[in-house]
Amino acid sequence: MEKVRDLVREGKRVAKEDPRRVVHSFKVGLVLSLVSSFYYYQPLYDSFGVNAMWAVMTVVVVFEFSVGATLGKGLNRVAATLFAGALGIGAHHLASLSGSTGEPILLAIFVFIQAALSTFVRFFPRVKARYDYSLLIFILTFALISVSGFREEQVLVLTHKRISTVIIGGFSCVLISIFVCPVWAGQDLHSLLASNVEKLSFFLLEFGDKYCETVKDGDTKEVDKRKNDFDNYKSVLNSKSNEESLANFAKWEPGHGQFRFRHPWKQYLSIGGLIRQCAYRIDALNSYLNADIQVSIDIRKKLEEPLRRMSLESGKAMKEMSVSLTKMIKPSSSDLHVRNAQSACKSLTSLLHSGILKEVESQELISLLTAISLLIDIINLTENILESLHELASAARFKDKIESPIFAEKPNSKSIVCGWATKGQDDHVVTIVNDDCCNGNTSEKGNRSNKVLIHEKHENCVHEKHEDDDAHVNSSCDSCGHTSLRVIVECR
Amino acid sequence: MEKVRDLVREGKRVAKEDPRRVVHSFKVGLVLSLVSSFYYYQPLYDSFGVNAMWAVMTVVVVFEFSVGATLGKGLNRVAATLFAGALGIGAHHLASLSGSTGEPILLAIFVFIQAALSTFVRFFPRVKARYDYSLLIFILTFALISVSGFREEQVLVLTHKRISTVIIGGFSCVLISIFVCPVWAGQDLHSLLASNVEKLSFFLLEFGDKYCETVKDGDTKEVDKRKNDFDNYKSVLNSKSNEESLANFAKWEPGHGQFRFRHPWKQYLSIGGLIRQCAYRIDALNSYLNADIQVSIDIRKKLEEPLRRMSLESGKAMKEMSVSLTKMIKPSSSDLHVRNAQSACKSLTSLLHSGILKEVESQELISLLTAISLLIDIINLTENILESLHELASAARFKDKIESPIFAEKPNSKSIVCGWATKGQDDHVVTIVNDDCCNGNTSEKGNRSNKVLIHEKHENCVHEKHEDDDAHVNSSCDSCGHTSLRVIVECR
Repeated sequence: MEKVRDLVREGKRVAKEDPRRVVHSFKVGLVLSLVSSFYYYQPLYDSFGVNAMWAVMTVVVVFEFSVGATLGKGLNRVAATLFAGALGIGAHHLASLSGSTGEPILLAIFVFIQAALSTFVRFFPRVKARYDYSLLIFILTFALISVSGFREEQVLVLTHKRISTVIIGGFSCVLISIFVCPVWAGQDLHSLLASNVEKLSFFLLEFGDKYCETVKDGDTKEVDKRKNDFDNYKSVLNSKSNEESLANFAKWEPGHGQFRFRHPWKQYLSIGGLIRQCAYRIDALNSYLNADIQVSIDIRKKLEEPLRRMSLESGKAMKEMSVSLTKMIKPSSSDLHVRNAQSACKSLTSLLHSGILKEVESQELISLLTAISLLIDIINLTENILESLHELASAARFKDKIESPIFAEKPNSKSIVCGWATKGQDDHVVTIVNDDCCNGNTSEKGNRSNKVLIHEKHENCVHEKHEDDDAHVNSSCDSCGHTSLRVIVECR
Repeated sequence: MEKVRDLVREGKRVAKEDPRRVVHSFKVGLVLSLVSSFYYYQPLYDSFGVNAMWAVMTVVVVFEFSVGATLGKGLNRVAATLFAGALGIGAHHLASLSGSTGEPILLAIFVFIQAALSTFVRFFPRVKARYDYSLLIFILTFALISVSGFREEQVLVLTHKRISTVIIGGFSCVLISIFVCPVWAGQDLHSLLASNVEKLSFFLLEFGDKYCETVKDGDTKEVDKRKNDFDNYKSVLNSKSNEESLANFAKWEPGHGQFRFRHPWKQYLSIGGLIRQCAYRIDALNSYLNADIQVSIDIRKKLEEPLRRMSLESGKAMKEMSVSLTKMIKPSSSDLHVRNAQSACKSLTSLLHSGILKEVESQELISLLTAISLLIDIINLTENILESLHELASAARFKDKIESPIFAEKPNSKSIVCGWATKGQDDHVVTIVNDDCCNGNTSEKGNRSNKVLIHEKHENCVHEKHEDDDAHVNSSCDSCGHTSLRVIVECR
């Protein structure tokens, strides 16, 4: 009883993790019941007979979770069946020329040669990666057709029926998988990459504070959530095989949504590789947070400013990249963050030059400098990831970011002014650019609302209202970059 | 034409890499021809009819490269077929109770429910890892049996024939794969681990020399070979999925050779994980060999002694572990090497304490200390790997190393003395323990042959003969540990 309850709980968890799984299960059941109607419906049974089972078999084997996998398997299966069918008929014809004693011997030899050769070719790495399933079906169909051809006289009719049922089964799978709640492998790969970058950004945004021990504990729920976010990067370490199979499937998919047919999926793999390299460094860095040998607080405090800036800025760059991936817009402010991180690197190096480390013990020194070196590596990798992302953005024609120009309108008594956010230490300082609509009055208003502090939040949107001077910040910073902000100043 | 030549070349390479692949291809061809004799041979055809094709299909799908994979798939297939067959008959019986209009509708509903439920269960991580194939076959067989049962009256006969042909096909695969040149996944996993450890040892044995730039270039062939060995560790980085699938297959295998049925395959995975972690550190370390910022030769020279000893001793420990895995004997001298490496660590730390780094530039310092920190990590991981290996050795009952006691025999005028190798800086010094057989004469002989230098080679066996005093070193040091050596001193 306890086991059944466990099973139900596990089922709920699996369904909650990705509700599309439930939909997929229903889709498979639906297609399978549809295809088995070949047996129930007399006219269909009359034309296909027992061969209808090939349609059932095709559906069971071909229908995969994503459109790409289904299409790939379906096309592989149909192509291999066609090719092996033709060869099988040829073999059958050749064998039948040699009389009734020679025929079975010759057929056995053909089957042996074909099976041995195809099995060997399956070991070729390039074939194994893409056409393994084709070859399996090729061996199967050839053996079945050439051998059963020996019994049945109408080998052409048999082959024809078998191939058409396979095609019918394959097509039903492909149609249902594309038109009923499709699951696109390409979309999944895209989201996976974006979420992986985001996971790294969570770590980096927090790391500086944690290393310098300046984290203030809030309520426990908040702390738990942040700890979860912090450790999330670990799932990135093993995402390679997942990315590769998704990219393989995505290649089969037709254009959908914002993805064209020949979307540069290969570029995703190279970005994914860089992200993983960065995650390895982060994993190593994380071990220094809880190491036995701790660098003394004194030293950390001395290095706090550049260290925090390095991790914060690289984290911001990552966050911005993740947003730009999600929205498929070109990353704009990431470059700035990377440059900031690099300049923080330089100021750290010059701080180290100043002889700050003279009194540090050697074991502490090793621990400290290794952490610094890892952080420098991470910043370099962030730059590489950004470069790769720029390449992707131009290859995949990501949209440019719409940066609203400074403009002024006067709808009734309200005017819209546009401000630019500049980066301060912890908060974004938004400087309101005055418009000249409000008869001198604005100038004062403008000055009054000259600094609107927007608390840095790592959601995509910040919504804030300053009651004092009726300046409503409407839409705002996408990530934590400097972005245009629209501020409505009401003229009274 | 060029393409065909490329294909042939690729084929030769694939065959040369692992000749068992060719044998496997022949085995598949053989079984398939045998099984298709069901069609040719009249008595067999009479009893099975078209159902013979299930045997063919089973062979094509089930016959895998290793015994474990074949057994696993075969058993999965047979079990799923039996279970689904029984359920299918039940469903058929239940549906037939509801009359001729209700039957097809009820059957379609059964197929829908079964397919949807099974497809959903395939998403459970634990099920996916081990029973994915079972569930596929389960869906397939249930649909085919319950649906074709609607047409054919003798549903029991049909099911019986289908199941027996599947069993025949499965058994032929399993028998051939076990008794004709078997490929054991367990053996492969074992060898993979041993070779992975060896690859790391190659790097570590060379690293010290390379980092301190004391490598002497010999002839280019030798240098190329060493460079290859040096870079070999890279293949370890991505061995995870390979190890996991081999371990999964190995669990299905019966006892063979030195592996019992319940060999602790899980322990192999944990050792493999540690080895990979070590390889990540080594990869990072390697990047410091060719980095832009190089530590000045002066500093390296000052740190040379402990640095070289650290890398050399951990390399020796790895090498010894690899040999002990290969031969399935308990690692004996690795502990000593690990301790040596740790003591080298300590002397390095005290050297750093002595203020040797006062004048080093900060960027150099970062690079140097990171390399040192990585090396320390590697030594710690070596210790962990060794611990894990000890656990494996006791769980899998590795043999104790046979350390020949000091003994003396007098076959004719030859006497066998036993010597112990002790470690010198670069060479093993073998001290011959005199036996008292040779009438005082030996004492002198013994003294004369008191030190037999055996040049350290990284093969498993060193064979050396000292012509001067007729001392033949018969069998000798396993790796580079201190090992017992048998030396024959001829008494004249």
